[in-house]
Amino acid sequence: MTEPGDIINTGLRGVPVASTRICLVDGKAGKLVYRGYNITELAENATFEEVAYLLLFEHLPPEKELADFKAQLTQKTPLPGQLVAALKTRPANALPMDILQACVPMLANHDPEAGDLSREKATDTAIGLIARFPAIMAAWHRIRNGLEPLAPKPELGHAANFLFMLTGETPDPETAKFMDTCLVLHAEHSFNASTFSARQVASSRAHMYAAAAAGVGSLSGELHGGANARVMQMLLDIGALDRVDNYVESRLKAGEKVMGMGHAVYKNGDPRAAILAPMSRQMGEKTGNLKWYELGEAVRKKAAEVFRELKGAEIYPNVDFYSATTYYAMGIPIDLFTPVFAISRISGWCAHVIEEQFAGAAPKPALYRPASEYVGEYCGPEECEFVPMEKRPS
Amino acid sequence: MTEPGDIINTGLRGVPVASTRICLVDGKAGKLVYRGYNITELAENATFEEVAYLLLFEHLPPEKELADFKAQLTQKTPLPGQLVAALKTRPANALPMDILQACVPMLANHDPEAGDLSREKATDTAIGLIARFPAIMAAWHRIRNGLEPLAPKPELGHAANFLFMLTGETPDPETAKFMDTCLVLHAEHSFNASTFSARQVASSRAHMYAAAAAGVGSLSGELHGGANARVMQMLLDIGALDRVDNYVESRLKAGEKVMGMGHAVYKNGDPRAAILAPMSRQMGEKTGNLKWYELGEAVRKKAAEVFRELKGAEIYPNVDFYSATTYYAMGIPIDLFTPVFAISRISGWCAHVIEEQFAGAAPKPALYRPASEYVGEYCGPEECEFVPMEKRPS
Repeated sequence: MTEPGDIINTGLRGVPVASTRICLVDGKAGKLVYRGYNITELAENATFEEVAYLLLFEHLPPEKELADFKAQLTQKTPLPGQLVAALKTRPANALPMDILQACVPMLANHDPEAGDLSREKATDTAIGLIARFPAIMAAWHRIRNGLEPLAPKPELGHAANFLFMLTGETPDPETAKFMDTCLVLHAEHSFNASTFSARQVASSRAHMYAAAAAGVGSLSGELHGGANARVMQMLLDIGALDRVDNYVESRLKAGEKVMGMGHAVYKNGDPRAAILAPMSRQMGEKTGNLKWYELGEAVRKKAAEVFRELKGAEIYPNVDFYSATTYYAMGIPIDLFTPVFAISRISGWCAHVIEEQFAGAAPKPALYRPASEYVGEYCGPEECEFVPMEKRPS
Repeated sequence: MTEPGDIINTGLRGVPVASTRICLVDGKAGKLVYRGYNITELAENATFEEVAYLLLFEHLPPEKELADFKAQLTQKTPLPGQLVAALKTRPANALPMDILQACVPMLANHDPEAGDLSREKATDTAIGLIARFPAIMAAWHRIRNGLEPLAPKPELGHAANFLFMLTGETPDPETAKFMDTCLVLHAEHSFNASTFSARQVASSRAHMYAAAAAGVGSLSGELHGGANARVMQMLLDIGALDRVDNYVESRLKAGEKVMGMGHAVYKNGDPRAAILAPMSRQMGEKTGNLKWYELGEAVRKKAAEVFRELKGAEIYPNVDFYSATTYYAMGIPIDLFTPVFAISRISGWCAHVIEEQFAGAAPKPALYRPASEYVGEYCGPEECEFVPMEKRPS
């Protein structure tokens, strides 16, 4: 029961804020569709570059368009020297998502056309952001370890280049393909919190950089993009198979969550988890360490069992559950898991910013300016008389 | 009329997203209330420091609390040396709002407790952000002009210190008081676009810095904080009294807006404009240049006359109308007008972030995750078959 003066916030659940041509999330059917294409088909058949093109341009690219798009990404990937200089001023213990959020408006500093609010410019900026997110995170990881950033290799794809710029080693084709699929799976998810933040900022006709920086900020929260890192932290904390049952039981019986299990929308299973699960196993096999995959599987089974017992319902792993162990097996540091999410999702944010600013029909795209209910009953329902200094209770 | 596939976005107008104890905006009555206190009384009787305290702590500060709060602001104002080093890597033609947006997450880099998500820490971070927004903008303005940033003077108030750090000259008391009042008037305005963006980012349990950076991004848009700069640009473009009538008539008759006239919420006048108008005149008198105030007044009168003729309704100047000429008379560069708005509004954003993260009643503060309507009918209502490369139309 709520009292007068209580703050109520239901997070706009179930309230439609806009229509969109970008993405369909059908929780009941466990279906995710980007621009008409089912995620399972995209993960099997398309690269991240094709998917990013699809999100921005509304169709899968024919060969020549894809080659042009990849050439643009390659050309835009290297970071401005002054941005690298700025990164070198940053303390090594900075949170990577804070670094990424700072770099987005700094990229605007190096773009003399940042203030151009045309659709053509927004699309060009989008390609630049998609190109540079991996370069920023890889450069930062090297700089914080006292190493020089690496230039991308033009012959590598987007996913492989990220791993190369991060580690200095060209990944084998299978690992590169797995990373590419991870990027495909995380690219878009309709009006989730970070996308809604980016759209909102864009609705004031702020430029693409300002909106993308808001998306990064939202994704950094532990209820959103931070979840994949917390899954891995959970597995490391559990540490051994014989501790799984006790951990899972005590969490669920205390009414707490098991990280990576369950999803706000996919109540019957997250289609992305089904694609990631075998990749997580294969990365374990490839690196000769199946421990984390197996520990994860034990957590998944036990959580399902206890959940069934407690609630009489099923619970399934979500996208974060298997991406955590996949990234870990790839040697990606845990504090870069959420940035990897951002490296993919920037493509969806950009598509949404373009839709917000340029695709509106009647009525015209509007500044988000919701209503609120004032419950600040400090001295009656509305106003107090001003209290001069000498009369304020100390 | 809308067609299937059209994008509809009504900007959540009239849709209540949450309740709040912070601010009441009563458009019909032309009333703005912060935490129970009418803006007119606050502008007359309270400093920006008192108002920022009121917004954060829900009551006007008694003498000792105010002294402590001011001491904290003074102590937190100086920028970390590494942040100044980062600013020195930025190109001189960077947009100031982009610089500000980049600096907010960079401040997080220098805060080893940035990841602490307690209410106590959020309040401490809020005070730091309120302290440093003016320092950042003043430092940047000096750096872009090849000058060294200035340390604040501990004996000056917040508003006076901003003007001192910006110009190198201690403002006279009247000018300092006018700036202080401008900061009071812009500090808070309920769920406007930038505040909603900041709350949204905070709803993922991202830290205060990430949320504040989203607020800056939203405010940078021309439909939001950019309006004050556009008012001044309009006056400069008109340039002479004898060109006012023609300018105003041709704009309004073409269905375009006159910048600074009218408000989405205050249909019967913006209470802040009434307070700013005499300040704008007095700043003109003080600097011996009433031209821009008088030009503004001519625009206001003509716009009201033409609007009455065209629509049979009244139109009034808004807060941006008079803040533009006031800042201009103070010698503030036009591209810093929106940053001055941010220097004030950061106090409101921080209060809202704290409310979003810590003041929720049942149900618990929730991640904003609205619904949307999928209208992407690319090949039927939901899904297409995947099109392999060789079959894509070029």
